[in-house]
Amino acid sequence: MSDLPKRVTINEEGPREGFQSEKKMIPVADKVRLIEALADTGLKHIACVSYVNPKRVPTMADAEEVAAKINLKPGVQYSALWLNQQGLERALRGPLHVDGGVRVTASDTFSRKNIGKSVADAMVEQRMSLKTFKDRGMPVEWGTILGAFGCNYEGELSTDLILQRVQLALDEAELAGFKLKGIKLTDAMGWATPASVERLIGAVRSKWPDLEISLHLHDTRGTGAAAAYAGLRMGVTKFDASVAGLGGCPFAATDGAAGNICTEDFAFMCEEMGVETGLDIERLIDVAKLAEEIVGRPLPGHLMRGGTLNAARRKVAA
Amino acid sequence: MSDLPKRVTINEEGPREGFQSEKKMIPVADKVRLIEALADTGLKHIACVSYVNPKRVPTMADAEEVAAKINLKPGVQYSALWLNQQGLERALRGPLHVDGGVRVTASDTFSRKNIGKSVADAMVEQRMSLKTFKDRGMPVEWGTILGAFGCNYEGELSTDLILQRVQLALDEAELAGFKLKGIKLTDAMGWATPASVERLIGAVRSKWPDLEISLHLHDTRGTGAAAAYAGLRMGVTKFDASVAGLGGCPFAATDGAAGNICTEDFAFMCEEMGVETGLDIERLIDVAKLAEEIVGRPLPGHLMRGGTLNAARRKVAA
Repeated sequence: MSDLPKRVTINEEGPREGFQSEKKMIPVADKVRLIEALADTGLKHIACVSYVNPKRVPTMADAEEVAAKINLKPGVQYSALWLNQQGLERALRGPLHVDGGVRVTASDTFSRKNIGKSVADAMVEQRMSLKTFKDRGMPVEWGTILGAFGCNYEGELSTDLILQRVQLALDEAELAGFKLKGIKLTDAMGWATPASVERLIGAVRSKWPDLEISLHLHDTRGTGAAAAYAGLRMGVTKFDASVAGLGGCPFAATDGAAGNICTEDFAFMCEEMGVETGLDIERLIDVAKLAEEIVGRPLPGHLMRGGTLNAARRKVAA
Repeated sequence: MSDLPKRVTINEEGPREGFQSEKKMIPVADKVRLIEALADTGLKHIACVSYVNPKRVPTMADAEEVAAKINLKPGVQYSALWLNQQGLERALRGPLHVDGGVRVTASDTFSRKNIGKSVADAMVEQRMSLKTFKDRGMPVEWGTILGAFGCNYEGELSTDLILQRVQLALDEAELAGFKLKGIKLTDAMGWATPASVERLIGAVRSKWPDLEISLHLHDTRGTGAAAAYAGLRMGVTKFDASVAGLGGCPFAATDGAAGNICTEDFAFMCEEMGVETGLDIERLIDVAKLAEEIVGRPLPGHLMRGGTLNAARRKVAA
């Protein structure tokens, strides 16, 4: 299709998002095994751990240990998430990549639930992290709007509010001496539909035509693949996804807090439509099966059960 | 979104597609319970049973009994599927609605596997059923192209081949004295992507601008919601779907033969985008949970776990 991008980049969120939301503890060796297997599929960005308060997210208490044990493959960015200055300092002491970004939560209530601070207070704290990035000469290129499509605590969020949040991210970055090149719109609470993806991206684009846009979608209500396709149609070339559909946000107040869109399913859909991903989808399926083995329950990915069409084509040719 | 249809009709395929592909026998009472619960959700078309060879599809051996026990609600069409003249005669003896249609399988090999006949032989047999419809004064309005998006046995199918199959359906109907008003494109083997949906519908539309189009999609590889959304964008207003994502085609040679797109997930997506479905989605979620209870395993629907956004909005308002 001529109106879809030629190529997209998929950031893998499975280890961080996925293990964070599991109820049982996953052994460090299993986490490392999954991360290393993901690095063999062509993925260039893998979110591995969160440096968060182990009292709030016990499954991430081993972040330092996991980070230390990964056999880092050249050319792959293994990243660590952090939510506050304390987490950032832990992340910076570790061996993983730390994204120098600026984050703004769309809904004030979700901000309080997710990071324990109002949007305004969170911005004050971000000034400290932005200063840390500046002092260390780290780039700050992306702003992230958390929960940009709606909020389980506040309901609908107006497009105007989201545009204000984008402005806030741009302003805070500028104040610290940075110019953002892109905005990531995230939907941890699973409110996005294809229509709202088109609407919000359209609104951001018409105000800031030069900003790149990235999408972080969750498949909470079965709209994930369609919303991602709407993003592709809008020319989005950066997507977060999670192998086998691992994951969920533990503070999103959704009963069945669902994972990101599924990496291998989305990559398969892209490749079948002529959108390059650079990923080895058969290998991703093997990793998806490994993820199921590790968490010990079926995960939502479809392709690992249905098989690729290339496999079906090979069978026909044989 | 102004370019989406105002309203769509969803045909429920769960009982037929779903129970047909279950390995274990489902008690008649459970089948009837599910069908009756579906009829209370606003669905107007429910595919209930298949009159097929019980040796090939043992789970449908009870078709007569199920059909007889359904408490038929006025205004709802409870339909029966049949694959050959013998099945048609059984269906006509029963109390359920029998669609007077014409069916053409796209791939000759799939035709042999699915109904035991080549495309040509199947057409000869259809002449008998078309004559039966004519004799009984039954309307024949829809043609169905089975496996229109690709074939696990033959691989890619050219758009030209599919257009020939549509022509064949139109010709055979005309020969029997009928004029088709629409064509249903089905994808039992899960090959459709948003791009191929757009391409094929575009090709059919440009040749027959007045033909209505209906989509029967399976979510074998995680592209179902996106392919359905592509259909909506192309103005399709008729979709088959399956509650909880029940189902699969037992002769499709896919390891994880997956069900149709999920009724309540798709209906939810439509309603959230302003496309009316006439369905009570909260009730559909209850029926999806009942379907899981009946088959005794988790089914792929997402919404029954994530909950509707209207439920989330009510919580916010409370």
